[in-house]
Amino acid sequence: MKKIAVFTSGGDSPGMNACIRAVVRAAIYNQVEVLGIRRGYAGMILGDFVPLDREGVQGIINRGGTILGSARSAEFMTPEGRQKAFEQLQAAGVDGVVVIGGDGSFKGATVFMEEHPEIPFVGIPGTIDNDLYGTDYTLGYDTAINTALEAIDKIRDTAEAYNRLFFVEVMGRDAGFIALRSGIAGGAEAILVPEVETDIPLLIQQIGEYHEKHKHSCIIVVAEGDDAGGAFELAKQVQDKVPYEESRVTVLGHIQRGGTPTCADRVLAAQMGIGAVEALLANKRGIMIGVQHKQVVEVPFEQSTKHNIEISPSLKKVAHILSAI
Amino acid sequence: MKKIAVFTSGGDSPGMNACIRAVVRAAIYNQVEVLGIRRGYAGMILGDFVPLDREGVQGIINRGGTILGSARSAEFMTPEGRQKAFEQLQAAGVDGVVVIGGDGSFKGATVFMEEHPEIPFVGIPGTIDNDLYGTDYTLGYDTAINTALEAIDKIRDTAEAYNRLFFVEVMGRDAGFIALRSGIAGGAEAILVPEVETDIPLLIQQIGEYHEKHKHSCIIVVAEGDDAGGAFELAKQVQDKVPYEESRVTVLGHIQRGGTPTCADRVLAAQMGIGAVEALLANKRGIMIGVQHKQVVEVPFEQSTKHNIEISPSLKKVAHILSAI
Amino acid sequence: MKKIAVFTSGGDSPGMNACIRAVVRAAIYNQVEVLGIRRGYAGMILGDFVPLDREGVQGIINRGGTILGSARSAEFMTPEGRQKAFEQLQAAGVDGVVVIGGDGSFKGATVFMEEHPEIPFVGIPGTIDNDLYGTDYTLGYDTAINTALEAIDKIRDTAEAYNRLFFVEVMGRDAGFIALRSGIAGGAEAILVPEVETDIPLLIQQIGEYHEKHKHSCIIVVAEGDDAGGAFELAKQVQDKVPYEESRVTVLGHIQRGGTPTCADRVLAAQMGIGAVEALLANKRGIMIGVQHKQVVEVPFEQSTKHNIEISPSLKKVAHILSAI
Amino acid sequence: MKKIAVFTSGGDSPGMNACIRAVVRAAIYNQVEVLGIRRGYAGMILGDFVPLDREGVQGIINRGGTILGSARSAEFMTPEGRQKAFEQLQAAGVDGVVVIGGDGSFKGATVFMEEHPEIPFVGIPGTIDNDLYGTDYTLGYDTAINTALEAIDKIRDTAEAYNRLFFVEVMGRDAGFIALRSGIAGGAEAILVPEVETDIPLLIQQIGEYHEKHKHSCIIVVAEGDDAGGAFELAKQVQDKVPYEESRVTVLGHIQRGGTPTCADRVLAAQMGIGAVEALLANKRGIMIGVQHKQVVEVPFEQSTKHNIEISPSLKKVAHILSAI
Repeated sequence: MKKIAVFTSGGDSPGMNACIRAVVRAAIYNQVEVLGIRRGYAGMILGDFVPLDREGVQGIINRGGTILGSARSAEFMTPEGRQKAFEQLQAAGVDGVVVIGGDGSFKGATVFMEEHPEIPFVGIPGTIDNDLYGTDYTLGYDTAINTALEAIDKIRDTAEAYNRLFFVEVMGRDAGFIALRSGIAGGAEAILVPEVETDIPLLIQQIGEYHEKHKHSCIIVVAEGDDAGGAFELAKQVQDKVPYEESRVTVLGHIQRGGTPTCADRVLAAQMGIGAVEALLANKRGIMIGVQHKQVVEVPFEQSTKHNIEISPSLKKVAHILSAI
Repeated sequence: MKKIAVFTSGGDSPGMNACIRAVVRAAIYNQVEVLGIRRGYAGMILGDFVPLDREGVQGIINRGGTILGSARSAEFMTPEGRQKAFEQLQAAGVDGVVVIGGDGSFKGATVFMEEHPEIPFVGIPGTIDNDLYGTDYTLGYDTAINTALEAIDKIRDTAEAYNRLFFVEVMGRDAGFIALRSGIAGGAEAILVPEVETDIPLLIQQIGEYHEKHKHSCIIVVAEGDDAGGAFELAKQVQDKVPYEESRVTVLGHIQRGGTPTCADRVLAAQMGIGAVEALLANKRGIMIGVQHKQVVEVPFEQSTKHNIEISPSLKKVAHILSAI
Repeated sequence: MKKIAVFTSGGDSPGMNACIRAVVRAAIYNQVEVLGIRRGYAGMILGDFVPLDREGVQGIINRGGTILGSARSAEFMTPEGRQKAFEQLQAAGVDGVVVIGGDGSFKGATVFMEEHPEIPFVGIPGTIDNDLYGTDYTLGYDTAINTALEAIDKIRDTAEAYNRLFFVEVMGRDAGFIALRSGIAGGAEAILVPEVETDIPLLIQQIGEYHEKHKHSCIIVVAEGDDAGGAFELAKQVQDKVPYEESRVTVLGHIQRGGTPTCADRVLAAQMGIGAVEALLANKRGIMIGVQHKQVVEVPFEQSTKHNIEISPSLKKVAHILSAI
Repeated sequence: MKKIAVFTSGGDSPGMNACIRAVVRAAIYNQVEVLGIRRGYAGMILGDFVPLDREGVQGIINRGGTILGSARSAEFMTPEGRQKAFEQLQAAGVDGVVVIGGDGSFKGATVFMEEHPEIPFVGIPGTIDNDLYGTDYTLGYDTAINTALEAIDKIRDTAEAYNRLFFVEVMGRDAGFIALRSGIAGGAEAILVPEVETDIPLLIQQIGEYHEKHKHSCIIVVAEGDDAGGAFELAKQVQDKVPYEESRVTVLGHIQRGGTPTCADRVLAAQMGIGAVEALLANKRGIMIGVQHKQVVEVPFEQSTKHNIEISPSLKKVAHILSAI
């Protein structure tokens, strides 16, 4: 292993830059050269490569986004596209690849390796959604829940001033992790997640009872992928049937993808970046580097993308006991 | 002047609590008692008063929202409602009132004083919109622009990762101050404000040229009251006619009203709170306390609510020169 | 179990208020009354109790410090003091106690229970130091490392402008956890912890080589309890023997104890608060509620306070590979 | 004016990067080329220049520090040094220079222009100290006071938990502006500034009375240049003579120079950067660009560095009324 490549793929998440830095530094530590691939699989096909050394990753540890960019690539879905990507990597002398991304990125790598077993891929779970099996936390998740929480805190200020009802939509198309943790931490009166069927009539009844008893503001945190629909849809169904004079909707959107990564995300980035380089050096392939119980672990791609991660019953209970309603 | 009342009214803004604290401490300093009126003019009509002393305003200097609450009051729009409010104030022995709020709150106070000249009102401009004449800054504006800016910074991270086009809607129904300052500070590629007619075809052309030349992400900051409509409406008209593959819309909404007040807002709260108490003690009435050029000034309510504040030509030029397009 | 008491003890840490709230809400959920004890064991001896209900813990979830206060108590170290405390608890009808604190607080509770087995204590690890055995994280640690990290980020800005050498001292009298994580996340060039003997001549040599090779700023993060002494002592021994023109010392101090708790700390507060109430209801005693691998666990006091927690070899390796020198 | 140079000098301050960006963009807008001078006057003497275009200032608007670096230069204090600097500028074809810095930087420029009138200098007040005459605010001041305030807020959390006495030292060698504003905004119980003689016996008496009456924590904010000495010195003189059981000292130090610039600082950077370029184009020289009452103004260097700026009597009164003691 003389030269490896690293790239970011899929939705960007805070900590990706810190992770690129860790990959580069760990490689240098092991006398391995590093190429950065710009704009994901699309850039791989085009051979859009840039050599990365210590100076190249200087000053990025605390920056959101990804200096390598990301993109979707329809072409990589085709054997021809993957063939081109393979040729570009070979031409550049790449012996192994670190892919920082999610579910889809790992599936792409798996198909690639079936066709081109010469070049091993190792994955790092970079996604704010925390929806990959085999790691306690994905890279960016801790920052995203803190961003969501700061927004909920601010909304509480104004909600409380008016005793208003707020619907706050956080990210999470298939998974309610962001909603659940930011909602518990923000003292949300209710938390709606895709993993649990939403009972609108019950919710309406509970909001009514809560208003009756406590006269305070009420914040409902909703994952974007909840079965009841997003926050706007939910508000439409609820607001005229509850005693609050006014309700408001906030959709946090892409601010959850940005921002300076938290300490936890940067430490995760460091552990995973080093773990990925060491795995390649140990001739591993097709695995995701996870962190479980603070220890670095290796999880086969197929396992990691199975997506059958369940909401923790313990946290569900916490939400149930602490929510107001 | 033995006893004064203080209340918050209209949309809440960060710094209101610091201002309530300043009013109470300044009153105590001058041996004057203070009553807090809960929930604005509505609470005034109901006599929902609470004595405020040092302990009562302990620990609130850095908290968003307002401990006194706010509300709309249709009843106060009627002579009967104002008569009730007057009776409640008289019964409680109130000699003067400090109202922290905006435009509408000062107009309400003006009508009240015409009917009940016995009780003088002095106003403090508490609104994030910075749309009151006679003060360099309104209370909460500095916090709101920093909140908007933090969001724009986060969005830049993810926009840049994908070279995406973003439309970010900030508050400002009639005034573009939040959009202009947060947009300049966030390096927005274009800033759309109600005060300037938006030329959509020109905007489309400029976005196209910008993409052609620079290949970077593009962030358009839009005031909610812009004549082109909000961010969603704008995106609908623009996104298919520009070369960006993807565009995204973010509506910041009520997070702009919350949060810990900035240093500037807390100093403003201190200056204005003391200024209001001193004005009442000096038998002033019907004036708003402003701060101009760092000095406390007094501005008649009629002047302050004229609303003919123009966007600074100097800042418009700054935005023109620094925006990318 | 009809009535429980809760108090905070030892050095305060962010998340204590969120935890008090969780204890109160979990108790109410289980039809149990709650008394708050003010100012730790000192207040227990004086019977300084306050009933806590939902309203009493309203709006504190995001506030640093502790609404119950904390204090040292020499008197509780004596059998007479503990006897008084016991009588106060009995007189107030307290059936069980939740103590949120560290090492010393649990030892105090252990001695108390030996003398007065009638009243069971359950502990929650509230300390920024992360130095209790049996829990992945203590309450307040995540906030503290983020506070330290923010400071290091700011110092990097100015250090880089001048290519300066900085010594940054973070908290940690016996444990280097804060230094290690904030140092890794801040990209520190070296991290000095009590658990590893500091080799000053080697450090001087490494700083020299680093300056020679990279010409960048250099930040050394030092735990206050490092064997080389704190940051001032270290700077004295190092600064004249390295090629940097200027060095600066920053001691972060008590800002690391304050601030709004992070999302992780608030979720921990929720899990631990509920866990403690449920443990008392299940007739447990003398145990600390920890969270391991995201699951709530119960750890006997004696185990938790053994203090033989080692720095993770994995993180030490990470620091070694990523540090510049 | 075909080519201008820009550099940062003296202590760095947040907003310098945003200002460099504004200078570059304003120059490009006016078809003028820009050179960046690295490491202040020292780099000028060495001809350490780098061309700056749009890409070169991409992504720096929100970053603390200065991409151009800063340094002290003993050599520039000599005619020979200035002669070398002049030759370097001439050789590079520089027609005018923008210097972003403080007092000393402007004095250096003044002497330079006396000897080498061929090259005009225009200044931008970049310093956190707010101690330049002729501008309402200097660049970086608003960020610095918010950084100090955040620290005071965190210290209040832990001070309040223990009813402790804290001495917090903020920057300000000759000027108390940071102490005054952050102290007022942080609700400090006393604020000590260089401009007002500190009466230690009176302070001791007031702290005693405050403790007697209110039993709360007590935070004393001290400017580093206060006549009583810094926070450590003050604590030594005070702590044994007041009724607080414990006192703590925090010296905020260089964290006040770093961090993402606030919205106000970035708008100031934009206005001043453009103003400086326009002044050079209008053949102005030897002036500092200030902002007064939101308008860009030009102030001769001699005036700006006179240093006879007084603490606002209005703010002194505010501090007097609102402080606890």
